[in-house]
Amino acid sequence: MTDVVIAGIGQTEVGEHWEIGLRDLALHAIQSAVKDSGGLKPQALFVGNMLAPNISNQAHLGALIADYAGLTGIEAITVEAAGASGGAALRQGYLAIASGMVDVALVVGIEKFTDKLGSEVEEAISTTSDSDFEAVQGMTTTAQAALLMKRYMHEHNVPASGFAGFALTSHANGVANKNAMFRKAIKPETYSKAEMVSDPLNMFDIAPNADGAAALVLTRRDLLPSDVKSPLVKIAGSAASSDTLALHDRKDILYFDTAQISAGKAMKQAGIVLDQVNFFEYHDAFSIYAALQLEAVGFAIKGKGWKLAEDGSIGLKGKIPCATMGGMKARGFPGGAAGVYQAVEAVTQLRGQAEANQIANAKYGLIQSLGGPASTAVSHILMAL
Amino acid sequence: MTDVVIAGIGQTEVGEHWEIGLRDLALHAIQSAVKDSGGLKPQALFVGNMLAPNISNQAHLGALIADYAGLTGIEAITVEAAGASGGAALRQGYLAIASGMVDVALVVGIEKFTDKLGSEVEEAISTTSDSDFEAVQGMTTTAQAALLMKRYMHEHNVPASGFAGFALTSHANGVANKNAMFRKAIKPETYSKAEMVSDPLNMFDIAPNADGAAALVLTRRDLLPSDVKSPLVKIAGSAASSDTLALHDRKDILYFDTAQISAGKAMKQAGIVLDQVNFFEYHDAFSIYAALQLEAVGFAIKGKGWKLAEDGSIGLKGKIPCATMGGMKARGFPGGAAGVYQAVEAVTQLRGQAEANQIANAKYGLIQSLGGPASTAVSHILMAL
Repeated sequence: MTDVVIAGIGQTEVGEHWEIGLRDLALHAIQSAVKDSGGLKPQALFVGNMLAPNISNQAHLGALIADYAGLTGIEAITVEAAGASGGAALRQGYLAIASGMVDVALVVGIEKFTDKLGSEVEEAISTTSDSDFEAVQGMTTTAQAALLMKRYMHEHNVPASGFAGFALTSHANGVANKNAMFRKAIKPETYSKAEMVSDPLNMFDIAPNADGAAALVLTRRDLLPSDVKSPLVKIAGSAASSDTLALHDRKDILYFDTAQISAGKAMKQAGIVLDQVNFFEYHDAFSIYAALQLEAVGFAIKGKGWKLAEDGSIGLKGKIPCATMGGMKARGFPGGAAGVYQAVEAVTQLRGQAEANQIANAKYGLIQSLGGPASTAVSHILMAL
Repeated sequence: MTDVVIAGIGQTEVGEHWEIGLRDLALHAIQSAVKDSGGLKPQALFVGNMLAPNISNQAHLGALIADYAGLTGIEAITVEAAGASGGAALRQGYLAIASGMVDVALVVGIEKFTDKLGSEVEEAISTTSDSDFEAVQGMTTTAQAALLMKRYMHEHNVPASGFAGFALTSHANGVANKNAMFRKAIKPETYSKAEMVSDPLNMFDIAPNADGAAALVLTRRDLLPSDVKSPLVKIAGSAASSDTLALHDRKDILYFDTAQISAGKAMKQAGIVLDQVNFFEYHDAFSIYAALQLEAVGFAIKGKGWKLAEDGSIGLKGKIPCATMGGMKARGFPGGAAGVYQAVEAVTQLRGQAEANQIANAKYGLIQSLGGPASTAVSHILMAL
């Protein structure tokens, strides 16, 4: 198969964009990505979005955004898989290029949570969990994550400060990322004194819902001129997997099967083993998710994922740097855009353009986008050529 | 490229399924399709859905339906492009198989409009039009179609009874389709005496919102045993195109650019010309859409699409049979499932299994799924092997 490469990246600052609408936000990211690609002309648009029909009263984003970006006529769809919508849109773009039917694909992740009040957003997010068996009981995804975390702490004897390392790392890495929502490092005391949201989950275990858009231009290697300036990044592996929405249907609620399956497939396709992965962009919507991903992917044994955060292994100079540009905790969590931000940040690393946050000798990056508690996981191995 | 074939089809009756939920409806269609395929094992699920997050309080349908269908672990996403969601899901399934990354794909269209009241459904459907410039003014998609129809009648001197042929044909064809919502033929007087909904659009110019699920199993020809019993149907052409959501942004509101572009590309890929198309499953959510599609695709010159309905050309024995199993008007309009029903019905024709509704010597069928007033159009040429 021809190499599928990411030829352009773009992103908006993540935060509360009260001043502009959904389509404008997408436009900014698209313009940056197309410019970055040297002006490639997209033939297809894959929009990753989680909740715009509920939160922004706008469905049919594919056609809307294609037109607004001056791409009227191209094929365009929205891809939804809850919080993994961005990763899933990237995979659809990848499949389209790999099929040989599309030469240049645009992948855009977009979410505008501030179009509704926080409580309304929580209600909307609840539609991504099992509405007949979980949401109907009043369980929010935050409350669900708290139950997971509580069980994890009980089974594995984790102290109250056990998860602090995730927030500390993300916030430290967010400082130098000019697109991050929070650019302030925090101290261990900040975590330990934080307000409780849903016991044992405190404010620093939860990524902030935010507005943002990120974009990628995908094409085949052979369609680019041989003297492309930016270091090229190839999609070396791409895979996805799904699991039950409702936790009660799982054999082991403390193991993210889909994270293991999709990462394993992506690495197999890329022809690499875990040791070759230089950094990992996990989906830290909740710190417990990050811990469980580290375990499922294989960076830690069961029950020890949190240790990697505590002992500094996930830091920029650690054994397996994670959330290298601030992750969802500090960069912010713009729903369906989150998975595309992961890709944009990974490309930045692999191009060697991450400045203060640069990982040394980054050749392979693993990015993993989750929907709910890994009810969906989409994994990609990006590789510097 | 390897031939992509539709190896299995399944559908539920279209109507008001108060008694069962979204996931059960999908399950019935999936079980039929998998059985019909001889028990192929899907590796990927593409769900076409328009409004479940709003109407059924359920997003994240990919993982939910995969699990409920006993396919836990496979990759699964939802594809949304308003009314064209079903056609768009089919195209994603096609691209996945064509990429060589997926051997067996399941495409499911699903909608359950009865989960909300009619007025709430109208409000939800309005999110598929331009929320900032159209929906915000209170314009529903029905009112929008009425404006299109009025302008068309004015410009082309169409009499009040001019569109009756669409409803008459669909209802005649629905009689023998056991999955159709309405199985009763109507007379010209029924149309002319029908209640006005939004002048000049009467009740028979509008397809009924309904519940339903349809499913397809896609694979590569070479993966099937050589002695497959059912006549095989190949996806010979697949294409999509997008246009503005808001009508005021178009050069000519009475020409469906995307219908022309996508059908043209699909035919080119199939290596056929329009004369070779034996039947056309158009998207008759409104009769005016059907007329405009007939013109854009090239079956009629501009302003004369309605004539094909009036003179019997779209009948089962006409020059270009349309809505052969009742179309959206009589079979019913189950939102994101509609485009998948088109494919199921086209396969039935191409297999020669349409019984009373069988088109003679059907070799090529064109199906076209629209989102809004052709803001999205997805076209496929299906071919009997």
